[in-house]
Amino acid sequence: MAGTVYEALAAGRNRILSDLIEFATIPSVSTDPVHRADIDRAAAWLADRLAAAGPFAVQILPTAGHPVVYAEWLGAAGAPTVLVYGHYDVQPPDPLEKWATEPFRPTVREGRLYGRGVSDDKGPVLIPIKVAEAFFATAGALPVNVKCLFEGEEEIGSPSLEPFVREHASQLAGDLVLSADGAMWRISEPSITVACRGLAGMELSVYGPAKDLHSGRHGGGVANPLHALASLIDSLHAADGRVAVAGFYDAVQELSAEERSTIAALPFDEAAYLAQVDSAATFGEPGYSTLERQWTRPTLEINGLWGGYQGAGSKTIVPAEAHAKLSCRLVPAQDPQDILDKVAAHLRGHLAPGVRLKIAPGGHAALPYEIPAAHPGLAVARAALCRVYGQEPVLVRMGGTVPICDAFHRILGMETVFFSFSTADEDFHAPNEFFRINRLWEGLEAWARYWELLGQRA
Amino acid sequence: MAGTVYEALAAGRNRILSDLIEFATIPSVSTDPVHRADIDRAAAWLADRLAAAGPFAVQILPTAGHPVVYAEWLGAAGAPTVLVYGHYDVQPPDPLEKWATEPFRPTVREGRLYGRGVSDDKGPVLIPIKVAEAFFATAGALPVNVKCLFEGEEEIGSPSLEPFVREHASQLAGDLVLSADGAMWRISEPSITVACRGLAGMELSVYGPAKDLHSGRHGGGVANPLHALASLIDSLHAADGRVAVAGFYDAVQELSAEERSTIAALPFDEAAYLAQVDSAATFGEPGYSTLERQWTRPTLEINGLWGGYQGAGSKTIVPAEAHAKLSCRLVPAQDPQDILDKVAAHLRGHLAPGVRLKIAPGGHAALPYEIPAAHPGLAVARAALCRVYGQEPVLVRMGGTVPICDAFHRILGMETVFFSFSTADEDFHAPNEFFRINRLWEGLEAWARYWELLGQRA
Repeated sequence: MAGTVYEALAAGRNRILSDLIEFATIPSVSTDPVHRADIDRAAAWLADRLAAAGPFAVQILPTAGHPVVYAEWLGAAGAPTVLVYGHYDVQPPDPLEKWATEPFRPTVREGRLYGRGVSDDKGPVLIPIKVAEAFFATAGALPVNVKCLFEGEEEIGSPSLEPFVREHASQLAGDLVLSADGAMWRISEPSITVACRGLAGMELSVYGPAKDLHSGRHGGGVANPLHALASLIDSLHAADGRVAVAGFYDAVQELSAEERSTIAALPFDEAAYLAQVDSAATFGEPGYSTLERQWTRPTLEINGLWGGYQGAGSKTIVPAEAHAKLSCRLVPAQDPQDILDKVAAHLRGHLAPGVRLKIAPGGHAALPYEIPAAHPGLAVARAALCRVYGQEPVLVRMGGTVPICDAFHRILGMETVFFSFSTADEDFHAPNEFFRINRLWEGLEAWARYWELLGQRA
Repeated sequence: MAGTVYEALAAGRNRILSDLIEFATIPSVSTDPVHRADIDRAAAWLADRLAAAGPFAVQILPTAGHPVVYAEWLGAAGAPTVLVYGHYDVQPPDPLEKWATEPFRPTVREGRLYGRGVSDDKGPVLIPIKVAEAFFATAGALPVNVKCLFEGEEEIGSPSLEPFVREHASQLAGDLVLSADGAMWRISEPSITVACRGLAGMELSVYGPAKDLHSGRHGGGVANPLHALASLIDSLHAADGRVAVAGFYDAVQELSAEERSTIAALPFDEAAYLAQVDSAATFGEPGYSTLERQWTRPTLEINGLWGGYQGAGSKTIVPAEAHAKLSCRLVPAQDPQDILDKVAAHLRGHLAPGVRLKIAPGGHAALPYEIPAAHPGLAVARAALCRVYGQEPVLVRMGGTVPICDAFHRILGMETVFFSFSTADEDFHAPNEFFRINRLWEGLEAWARYWELLGQRA
């Protein structure tokens, strides 16, 4: 035991990076049953790393779905207890052909590590483990009590985690949740995320004739399910981008003038944003700025759409069926089931004649979340980031969804501080996902600062 | 040389059916480059059968695309010359999982032969070859001069055949075209098809962000190409089924009262039709009966549609692109290029903001066709069918397209008599295509009668 935790972290960088590469080699895709064994491998890998980090009590705990990796060290008598949250599952790598290097062979290029899951959420998850290892190695103890909860179902909406949290409520109890998930807004300045949107999805299918028909013989005779599905999808939005589902905005809490001016004051260059996403123009609900739309307004998006012949050349058919995947991002105080019911009613009410509609659940729902502005965990985060970056972080919101925040609050009474060191532009959920290696080093220092500062408040 | 041609055909049934099974085992899918060698195998197989049938001069002639199989026997001095038309290529077998038996392992079940291409057009193409073989075997000669032209690109719109016909115009010259393609209307009564619709197609692609984006981070910020494509597709039709493209119906020749009453007099049971296609209701342009819509009105159909995530579970993205395949069936006097131009102008004019549209050619265009009612070839067909079926055939139209009819007329001055023995309900272009084996026997007799009757007219 020699030197500071910061010296130990700096000395350990090579091994930390090679551990992340090893972790990201496991294709732990939670949505695809084909990868079930990879999910188990990723959980075992994490449990091994936690056990190697120091005197954690480590468990792999079953759920109705993928297992939870749990670890605790409660030797900081009188200090606060932090529940560290993260996930070891990843998004599917499709479309595979758009990756410059293989998604599950992580590759370093120009200061970035490329690979599926490196940014969302394997890099950020590794940070608290390595920080704990460095504290144990240099000080023999952590500055705070730490419980780690790493799930394997975040990318499919965390369906098993809420029952798990309910069942293990006393085991998980603590002062706050520190989330390794939930990326920083941008690379240009440090930020703290104070809210995230909720999520609700469905899959819709339109059925026409029982089999594909020759479009010459039958075209003009019966309804085409592709036309009916396109019409349904088009009916979901007004031409100006507003969601056209009756009651969709009813529960939405409008922003206060102060909240709007805070967002307006953020340095946001629309042209730079468009260059980043390589898009020609912004588009969406009128009356709100791009940031307001992405952070504080609900959306309805078709995520996938298919039917009929998609191969080379042409095949002149009226297809038997057509399908779409749909999801909504929700804001306070929208309720996922209420929104799904309204969308379903809209779809049933707008179906063209001559076809049948089937609606199936799509992924799992999550409520939106917002941490109270005065929560002490935010002040510690602000101080830790000031130390690492030498500047005050900006407070931002997140368009994405961290499904479990609401459950932590409802069941455990704990608020969640987002303290991730991935960045929102790192193409998670897209080809060529990457994690900036300097963010890994910054994150290691910041988590060590956070635990130290929080321990000192006790 | 003993017995009549009819006795020879009856005696040869087993071998004829086993030849058809062998022919249909070759996956000669013209639209997919992967099957190029199978196309060549199918052409060689046909050439071999023609050579085996009798003293035909047989050639496999190259085109810019797939080869033409050509054969001629001109020994009937003073008799008319018939150009027999058919095609040896087939539609793709997708969706494979919907076939009860493998598409390229033809299987007999309950009097039907199941397999891709058995009805469209390999069974009907084999008929004139086997009839010629029987005439040569029993009479040593055919009652008429016969030229056979079997192409390998019908299912992709016959792009190379018109240049081929132009180049070989004197070689192909004759009195009429007898087409082995173009199915009979129904199984309940014999019919003669006197018109077919034209075809024009395109592929449209909508592009948004250059890569798939996380729908949480970016949803609400940029336009979703799936929404824009759905909106475009929905804009192509009015809610009542009428095509909404400006000028789409301009050139259409309205039916005369007499033509409409002829169609209305046909025995057509809408409930039975719906049961046949297993659809809940008919649907289409208002003001016209189902048969009128399928035979005499132009249509616009989306044949395929895709974009975003289509796998198991959910993937919450705003996808980078979306695609659709579109085709129109045309009636006299619509011009394919004019219609494509109008559709393209409509699409460009209805594109939502924030995305880009790309239009590419889709398959090859074909003009509609109609044989003059007084053409003598129709009278011979009527007489031949009366002999085989013991009843007068009904005159019908065809919703589908036989692209080369118009070219035969324009370039060679020859009209086309459809004399196919497949039936329109035999699921060509769909899974579980089949050919009724009794239609094979009836077709053999009918083609022999046709050639005999035509030879007697000389």
